[in-house]
Amino acid sequence: MTQFFIVNRFWHQQLVEVAFSQRGYDDEECLQMARLCDAATRNGIRTHNFLKALHLDTLFGSRVGGCVPGARIERRASRFSACEHWDANRKLGPSVGWKAIERCIELADIYGTGTVSVNNAWHYLWGGAYVLEAASKGYIAYTNCTAMLAEVAPFGGVFPTLGTNPHSWAFPTESIIGFPVLVDWATSAIAMGRAQQLARENQKLPPGVAVDAQGTITDDPNKVAALLPFGRHKGFGLGLINELFAGWIGGSVPTIRGRYGSQIPKGEKQSCAFYFQVIHPEAIQSANFAQGRSSEENVSSILKDILGHGNDQCLIPGQLEARMKQKSDEVQGLLFTQKEIEELNQIAKDCGLEITPLKDLEVCDF
Amino acid sequence: MTQFFIVNRFWHQQLVEVAFSQRGYDDEECLQMARLCDAATRNGIRTHNFLKALHLDTLFGSRVGGCVPGARIERRASRFSACEHWDANRKLGPSVGWKAIERCIELADIYGTGTVSVNNAWHYLWGGAYVLEAASKGYIAYTNCTAMLAEVAPFGGVFPTLGTNPHSWAFPTESIIGFPVLVDWATSAIAMGRAQQLARENQKLPPGVAVDAQGTITDDPNKVAALLPFGRHKGFGLGLINELFAGWIGGSVPTIRGRYGSQIPKGEKQSCAFYFQVIHPEAIQSANFAQGRSSEENVSSILKDILGHGNDQCLIPGQLEARMKQKSDEVQGLLFTQKEIEELNQIAKDCGLEITPLKDLEVCDF
Repeated sequence: MTQFFIVNRFWHQQLVEVAFSQRGYDDEECLQMARLCDAATRNGIRTHNFLKALHLDTLFGSRVGGCVPGARIERRASRFSACEHWDANRKLGPSVGWKAIERCIELADIYGTGTVSVNNAWHYLWGGAYVLEAASKGYIAYTNCTAMLAEVAPFGGVFPTLGTNPHSWAFPTESIIGFPVLVDWATSAIAMGRAQQLARENQKLPPGVAVDAQGTITDDPNKVAALLPFGRHKGFGLGLINELFAGWIGGSVPTIRGRYGSQIPKGEKQSCAFYFQVIHPEAIQSANFAQGRSSEENVSSILKDILGHGNDQCLIPGQLEARMKQKSDEVQGLLFTQKEIEELNQIAKDCGLEITPLKDLEVCDF
Repeated sequence: MTQFFIVNRFWHQQLVEVAFSQRGYDDEECLQMARLCDAATRNGIRTHNFLKALHLDTLFGSRVGGCVPGARIERRASRFSACEHWDANRKLGPSVGWKAIERCIELADIYGTGTVSVNNAWHYLWGGAYVLEAASKGYIAYTNCTAMLAEVAPFGGVFPTLGTNPHSWAFPTESIIGFPVLVDWATSAIAMGRAQQLARENQKLPPGVAVDAQGTITDDPNKVAALLPFGRHKGFGLGLINELFAGWIGGSVPTIRGRYGSQIPKGEKQSCAFYFQVIHPEAIQSANFAQGRSSEENVSSILKDILGHGNDQCLIPGQLEARMKQKSDEVQGLLFTQKEIEELNQIAKDCGLEITPLKDLEVCDF
């Protein structure tokens, strides 16, 4: 159990919008970023919340030219009607991500599946948010992206040459089990955000997830030189998939991604790439389920079977996020730790906004 | 290094065709099965070769009604032009798989991406073969399926309620690095075929990949009651994806899949489901790569970067398969171990075919 403080969602939204507005982003970009940060915190994604977003913008975004406030998305003409290719021109990631998933849904409504690939993209923060949005509307959705920095060594390697490259899948199971199944994780054995969180909290890393500058496995989150892929060659393969998608979509070599300075060769690109895909369940759906079941009843039977036979203590992927969301909605706010609120208040102060003193906040355990 | 014997490809093809023909399969089904078995062995996939195929047909196929020789595929009408839904009516898996990947390519040529979902399917043996076929023609391809039996416990569980549920992705990189990248594995920490192979060879399991009937982790391949997912909750999520796809496509509950007998409720389905997807690279491809590179040059630069910086000892997924294929082609045959050849000869004898005495075969180490 962690002790959380309950923060007003509107104060949080205002804080995100003002902070990003002061960095030059337009109203719509600020709104879309606030929507993403709200979704992340509401679902308990503490590694990809507003604090992370602002930190990323400082290191890799508007402060260094990696992200361009007010940039416009260009849709490239193509003969392929179910797939679109967008050049995001380094626009703020969430402002592209929400639009891309919407467009995939429109395409899936027509063709059964819809794909949007995004070139010259900037960090979309939490891929889970976009696929959950599609799942909440009844679709199966998938996204992958190249993470900002090469932080992961290939299986058997010593030097970080891949991003933590996440994959996110969501399924429209809310009406079936009360929440959408969400398979959503980085392909590293641990997220760098989680390592940073452990460093902030003076905790150790789990065993075997990272190496230090000498290539030796370390449990000190302050000494991480490269993360390792989860699941040995399997996780490496999954991380490589994102680099290959990005390779066709238009990303350049991983080790200069998100790196700025005079040592970067001229004519290079340091941006990320996104791949989104939405499937209309009816496009893959049988008309002939066992026992005359409906599609929902069929999926329900399968999930019951998987969690039956003594497996009832297992968690379904997405269940923890759903519990946090339920808790947040019960207490009608967003849950942050004391340390996070201290950081939020510092940002509010810097932005000239009212702070929310800890002593005024209600607490809850989760 | 393992010692292999070099078997004539035409003898092997004839053996597969005659063995399946004697079980009632029609000429085209036998040919497609032979094509699959050839591809598997040529790529070094010893867990999913002809021996496995025949074993599967005995346990779950034509001998028990799980697979129906001569069955016809029905294509279900749909309003979704980029996606097709097929009812395979329990037709021999490879005979459906090769057709499905071809159809996905045709759809991808038009829409940018093409999807074929297959209901009432029977084991397609090795998913890698189908996606490699698409990659050899220049496409990005993906497939998943539900494995025949529930052999994997969910993360944190005790009883096997998921298939080993593989995922296979292939990328058209042959012209770039000499072989297609192939990310292809079961979502269990070990394949049941591999456990069976270790049992045949009197070897132990790697640590932490399976539990015995009491739910205790075991290293004895003869005592496996449930496999564990690779990568903890991440591998569980990946295995669950296949069950959910199958849930919509038309599969029923996992624990009765591939099970035959009086204890199965009436009106149930014990078949697998397949999902295939092909992407035309031009549908996701930029017109604007860094340094004026072509798409091939761009992907090449990325792979060089990943294997650079001291990582040159790493294997790219698909590289081992490609090496085995190269070796097989060099020696102009298929590579089998002594034990495998003894089994092949037993089958040949049972089929009334000429055997290939070990002493007549050339050997090579790999």
